[in-house]
Amino acid sequence: MSNDASHERYDRGVAALAAIDGAAGQKVIESLADIAPDFARYVIEFPFGDIYSRPQLDLRAREIATIAALAALGNATPQLKVHIEASLNVGISRAEIVEVMMQMAVYAGFPAALNGLFAAKEVFAKLDSAH
Amino acid sequence: MSNDASHERYDRGVAALAAIDGAAGQKVIESLADIAPDFARYVIEFPFGDIYSRPQLDLRAREIATIAALAALGNATPQLKVHIEASLNVGISRAEIVEVMMQMAVYAGFPAALNGLFAAKEVFAKLDSAH
Amino acid sequence: MSNDASHERYDRGVAALAAIDGAAGQKVIESLADIAPDFARYVIEFPFGDIYSRPQLDLRAREIATIAALAALGNATPQLKVHIEASLNVGISRAEIVEVMMQMAVYAGFPAALNGLFAAKEVFAKLDSAH
Amino acid sequence: MSNDASHERYDRGVAALAAIDGAAGQKVIESLADIAPDFARYVIEFPFGDIYSRPQLDLRAREIATIAALAALGNATPQLKVHIEASLNVGISRAEIVEVMMQMAVYAGFPAALNGLFAAKEVFAKLDSAH
Amino acid sequence: MSNDASHERYDRGVAALAAIDGAAGQKVIESLADIAPDFARYVIEFPFGDIYSRPQLDLRAREIATIAALAALGNATPQLKVHIEASLNVGISRAEIVEVMMQMAVYAGFPAALNGLFAAKEVFAKLDSAH
Amino acid sequence: MSNDASHERYDRGVAALAAIDGAAGQKVIESLADIAPDFARYVIEFPFGDIYSRPQLDLRAREIATIAALAALGNATPQLKVHIEASLNVGISRAEIVEVMMQMAVYAGFPAALNGLFAAKEVFAKLDSAH
Repeated sequence: MSNDASHERYDRGVAALAAIDGAAGQKVIESLADIAPDFARYVIEFPFGDIYSRPQLDLRAREIATIAALAALGNATPQLKVHIEASLNVGISRAEIVEVMMQMAVYAGFPAALNGLFAAKEVFAKLDSAH
Repeated sequence: MSNDASHERYDRGVAALAAIDGAAGQKVIESLADIAPDFARYVIEFPFGDIYSRPQLDLRAREIATIAALAALGNATPQLKVHIEASLNVGISRAEIVEVMMQMAVYAGFPAALNGLFAAKEVFAKLDSAH
Repeated sequence: MSNDASHERYDRGVAALAAIDGAAGQKVIESLADIAPDFARYVIEFPFGDIYSRPQLDLRAREIATIAALAALGNATPQLKVHIEASLNVGISRAEIVEVMMQMAVYAGFPAALNGLFAAKEVFAKLDSAH
Repeated sequence: MSNDASHERYDRGVAALAAIDGAAGQKVIESLADIAPDFARYVIEFPFGDIYSRPQLDLRAREIATIAALAALGNATPQLKVHIEASLNVGISRAEIVEVMMQMAVYAGFPAALNGLFAAKEVFAKLDSAH
Repeated sequence: MSNDASHERYDRGVAALAAIDGAAGQKVIESLADIAPDFARYVIEFPFGDIYSRPQLDLRAREIATIAALAALGNATPQLKVHIEASLNVGISRAEIVEVMMQMAVYAGFPAALNGLFAAKEVFAKLDSAH
Repeated sequence: MSNDASHERYDRGVAALAAIDGAAGQKVIESLADIAPDFARYVIEFPFGDIYSRPQLDLRAREIATIAALAALGNATPQLKVHIEASLNVGISRAEIVEVMMQMAVYAGFPAALNGLFAAKEVFAKLDSAH
């Protein structure tokens, strides 16, 4: 980040990450500090500074796409949980998140849907117990 | 389908499939006639009669979830193309479809995004040449 | 489930689930009660009421197909364990289950086979300790 | 293959490959001759000389496991077709193969099942036209 | 790309892409021009301007990692072919590429290895026929 | 293993496994003793006695290919950790391992890269605490 332009992209990413992923996103960034600090920067710059900051698609649609893809792939449960919480942050309801997980039974099988639903259950329970 | 109740679910599925997938969906059903006619019925009943007919999530969100998941999985190009067309049918714009494909670079890698974009390009070209 | 026909399919699914997955299947259904009760119904109706109830393939073959697929996919360990137990329930021997897991080394790689074998080892140990 | 013992394993593999995969298996071996002849030997020795030659699981069960896994993974259509034909060779009926593909809708999603069914349809058509 | 800093990253990516992927990389970029020109820019900036330009790992290791991963995933044959050619461009021998594909039998199964070998065979044949 | 030739292959595999995977590899073999002892032998014979013992590719390249593939597949974390340690054993630096994981963001998505980096972090911490 040698100058103003890089800073712009980085700063836009920091703002998007905070708005979308909240504390969970910040924790991911911090967990990279001692193993791959450059990758923490890339996470901020490319997914958040570039992709999520594009105005061509609303954040509701972006988060639905993300939780659908992560539930279908089925090999990234920590990231799925972060984005289930992010989905709530951008205004998607719990009932809608549950629907997206259920729909994944059609495209990735019932185990993928079940594991997505159990991830949602854990996130909702954590949020409820924090109140 | 021995009685009225089964017919209701089947008929609801036929209507949903026609509204969402249009002619492309009908072609899938027909292509199953000589190999697995029962599976054609299940395709109509479960994904369309059950899942897509649920009012808890709008069709725009459902199709975004579907094209995101199929592009991320990367092993079902014919079905991805059917649902890119279905996305247009339910009011998602070409620019939005392109955004969803681009976003998959973050969750499933650049090759998955590229192959999703090329699938979209083919579908758009086919539709343009049909006019 | 508004009438007799739906009830038939649901009841057939409940019976098949009990016969095949036993207590483990019942636990999956219960764990969905507070997050997605409709999905619990779909699990009973489609996989068990529709697919597993079809007479065209014996349950031995169905369970072999299931544990092979789940071990190969490698992203649904809880469901793999349920179906390793289900395989025993329908008369497949421990030695045969081990063979299926070993064979997955050929089609999905040695890590998939190893993780399948370790899942089987856990299920067998749990059953032995319950006696 | 420096001596009698290696030859035994290799010869056992050649016999198993011929019995199970028939001409389709031989074509795979030949197609490796100019790019990776050692790998052709490994294909014969490990999957066929070692795994398929083990008496602990019958060939019917082995082929059901294989076509289920390959349909679920969805990224190896040529090998799925070889083993759909192999399934017929070891006495599995067309109707049973269709059932296994249909069942994969539950574990790997409807697109995986559809693509498995279309692969079966192609293999059956090829065999019918050869008569 | 509003200023000097963005241009630096983009220019570094263009140079890396040309050095590594050659004409095949250029073709990918061009094929995006009418569907997703911004994504063409991201492909240049992130994978090539950021990742491949990092001095912490030599290009030989980077290409070995790439062809191994793409062969293992098995759902991105066009990109695998581009990187088999790129591997040759950075000094990896044909025999070494064949070894990497063979090794994937261990981690992703024999079908993944076979399909990787056949992709390599096609790339080598294309290059030979161009002389 | 009825004679000298089988013993040669097995012994070569034992030596390669010890040199590459060290104690972690030995633990995998031991954990198979009571569930699938024959598979322990196959793990030694095919991946190590056959593949890793081939002189056509150096061990550095082989381990880079392995950790790249396992991080990309994302469904075999225990094996990824074994091979992150194996990578150190054959002379790959921690910084290089981190680079390979980061590069997987391009081919398998950011979650795959993150999970690979966290696996590396755990392995490095375990090694540091053992001193």
